[in-house]
Amino acid sequence: MQDVKTYMHAIGGKARLASRLIGRADTAAKNLALVNIANRLEADEQALITENAKDLSAGRDKGLDAAMLDRLVLSAKGIKAMADGLREVAALADPIGEITGLAYRPSGIQVGRMRVPLGVIGIIYESRPNVTADAAALCIKSGNACILRGGSEAIHSNRAIAARVQAGLAAAGLPEDAVQLVETTDRAAVGELLRMEKQVDVIVPRGGKGLIERIMAESRIPIIKHLDGICHVFIDDKADHDKAIRIAMNAKTQRYGVCNAMETLLVAEGIADSILPELASLLTEKGVELRGCPKTLERVPSATPATEEDWDTEYLAAILSIRVVPGLDEAIDHIHRHSSQHTEAIVTEDYTRARRFLREVDSSSVMVNASTRFADGFEYGLGAEIGISTDKLHARGPVGLEGLTSQKFVVLGDGQVRG
Amino acid sequence: MQDVKTYMHAIGGKARLASRLIGRADTAAKNLALVNIANRLEADEQALITENAKDLSAGRDKGLDAAMLDRLVLSAKGIKAMADGLREVAALADPIGEITGLAYRPSGIQVGRMRVPLGVIGIIYESRPNVTADAAALCIKSGNACILRGGSEAIHSNRAIAARVQAGLAAAGLPEDAVQLVETTDRAAVGELLRMEKQVDVIVPRGGKGLIERIMAESRIPIIKHLDGICHVFIDDKADHDKAIRIAMNAKTQRYGVCNAMETLLVAEGIADSILPELASLLTEKGVELRGCPKTLERVPSATPATEEDWDTEYLAAILSIRVVPGLDEAIDHIHRHSSQHTEAIVTEDYTRARRFLREVDSSSVMVNASTRFADGFEYGLGAEIGISTDKLHARGPVGLEGLTSQKFVVLGDGQVRG
Repeated sequence: MQDVKTYMHAIGGKARLASRLIGRADTAAKNLALVNIANRLEADEQALITENAKDLSAGRDKGLDAAMLDRLVLSAKGIKAMADGLREVAALADPIGEITGLAYRPSGIQVGRMRVPLGVIGIIYESRPNVTADAAALCIKSGNACILRGGSEAIHSNRAIAARVQAGLAAAGLPEDAVQLVETTDRAAVGELLRMEKQVDVIVPRGGKGLIERIMAESRIPIIKHLDGICHVFIDDKADHDKAIRIAMNAKTQRYGVCNAMETLLVAEGIADSILPELASLLTEKGVELRGCPKTLERVPSATPATEEDWDTEYLAAILSIRVVPGLDEAIDHIHRHSSQHTEAIVTEDYTRARRFLREVDSSSVMVNASTRFADGFEYGLGAEIGISTDKLHARGPVGLEGLTSQKFVVLGDGQVRG
Repeated sequence: MQDVKTYMHAIGGKARLASRLIGRADTAAKNLALVNIANRLEADEQALITENAKDLSAGRDKGLDAAMLDRLVLSAKGIKAMADGLREVAALADPIGEITGLAYRPSGIQVGRMRVPLGVIGIIYESRPNVTADAAALCIKSGNACILRGGSEAIHSNRAIAARVQAGLAAAGLPEDAVQLVETTDRAAVGELLRMEKQVDVIVPRGGKGLIERIMAESRIPIIKHLDGICHVFIDDKADHDKAIRIAMNAKTQRYGVCNAMETLLVAEGIADSILPELASLLTEKGVELRGCPKTLERVPSATPATEEDWDTEYLAAILSIRVVPGLDEAIDHIHRHSSQHTEAIVTEDYTRARRFLREVDSSSVMVNASTRFADGFEYGLGAEIGISTDKLHARGPVGLEGLTSQKFVVLGDGQVRG
């Protein structure tokens, strides 16, 4: 254990030093590093695939299931996607150093805010090796140093990618230590990382709920995290029929295992008769299991009764719970009680209800007449996404470059003093 | 203990419910409440002074020192200042509901951000009773419910003020529970509050370092906090002589016991001979004790030698440590090693060095040719200040209304779905 502690603190110390250099690096150098890395990943495609094969073979020996093995694969296409992602981040505007709101005060000083990096970011993730390149890219562009702790099952792939990242940084004259991979697969390394408050400014966990909850319980460092995605669509009785069907179908069935998929459908009583039977049959055709409140069951006899637990469940599967509510107030009440504050949508043509839903629903994304599936950094135009935050402090919703930054006050004077 | 727990959880539950109502209250109602409270505090001046006298008398019996008793006093002038403060907050723009950056995306959806309250804010403070009104005002305006835990020595004064706050809320049609004072002086109440993650979204401690450190150690809720103020002024060798003298004198001597006072002066070697003896004699005249590095002592023989500890000390007193450095790089290095990242200033006429200092110094306020004493919400034009944050996440530097808010994404569509 002492070894892991010494090893992690050495990484932390190097990250802290590197963070000062990358924090003041100019935009051209950061972009050059990103393009360097992209080129190296593509040039070394065969070497990466060879290293990845070691992980896949070990994973098969360990009996990883098909879904896990699938997430672990690094194909030629996947490598191309990583490289493209790096070039896209290079093309984004540099957020660092931007000064906003610089205004004169009655005292004569000029006060504004400058966007600055957070410092050192610890990223803890599971089997997808592409996160190594994606997360490094966002940290480099936002002027942060990072410590990457990937899953042990992807260690060969992650090492191979991280080596190209460090080489790309060095070739741009930036410190290699700005991106460090934790090379030990000892699980104690994570516990150590979560206690390094002096060296690490924020932890970003990426993975399943088990991982997030463990990190929440252990971390002494602030976390930007995504916990649950219990998303709701409310079909108001002033909804356009076709929009309602289209949005509900897309929100539930476009992909099942994603955090921004609808898990509960709320339907206003006034429109339930005309919409629920049709929607239920479309959903059933797609193989979606329906669980309903008593008023839903009256209209959809094939559904099974929903339990109280259903309203609080993120299925991440082809299951939908449905509740018929008298109207907007009750829909908002249901959302306040059961939502994970991720993403909720109303389908309505009523102006006042749309405005009320936007204002009163307290979730990271609130939508009118759009599918919850749009809750995503790329769809929102952030250019990239390190995750989605269901917290309220600091970053909320999809987190792009800006979520990895802070703002300091800058004051310009001509010798002013306080009277 | 069970009683305190039950009591605190009841407060928390009421705060959570009230937060939904105050969160969607319209601007006029919130402003009316603030003006109501101001009027009531002024109208009930005598009653407030009578209640305050009980605290003062108990404080004298308990042997509180003169400084503590001074902070506890609620004078007619102090009541007027509280009322004026409430009216000033009423006059500020309402941050809640403001939508920024609403832009069309290629998918046809419109995406922007709406500013929203954090929810429930727990404020833990010490003897100044005016914090009860000041903090309540900021929370009301920013649409947050709050739970106020003042010092036990001010309990009568705080109760009297909180009663007027609740009456003012009720008279504006807003929930009284939006501002609740913890009425028990049992210290276990604080520990309970810090564990109520479900009911409280953020803790704002206001008080001395002992209080803050205790809260940091115990809290399971995120904290917006201010820890140390080890502020530096660096006099560059391209500094204007008069500005340097004026700023250094103001930063150190305008007030001693404040977090934005200078604690360490850094002087470039090239200007040390021409500025240090004069500055030292002016500071000595004011009664400031000087502690210097060897190169300082050569120029200021009356100073005592500074120890390593001095560079890391927030004196909050008429003491100044002085270090002569070769130039800007060494000044920035010293700041990175010893600053508490609160406020640092450079005095220089050199354009490039000013730009480098602004970019490279990682503190919540970074200044050129202005006194560190300007680091303040009112001076910065925030209109009011709930505290100064030395953290990087969420809020940094002086925290006004905006620091008590978050932003959610809003999406407006016409039936768009994801392809």
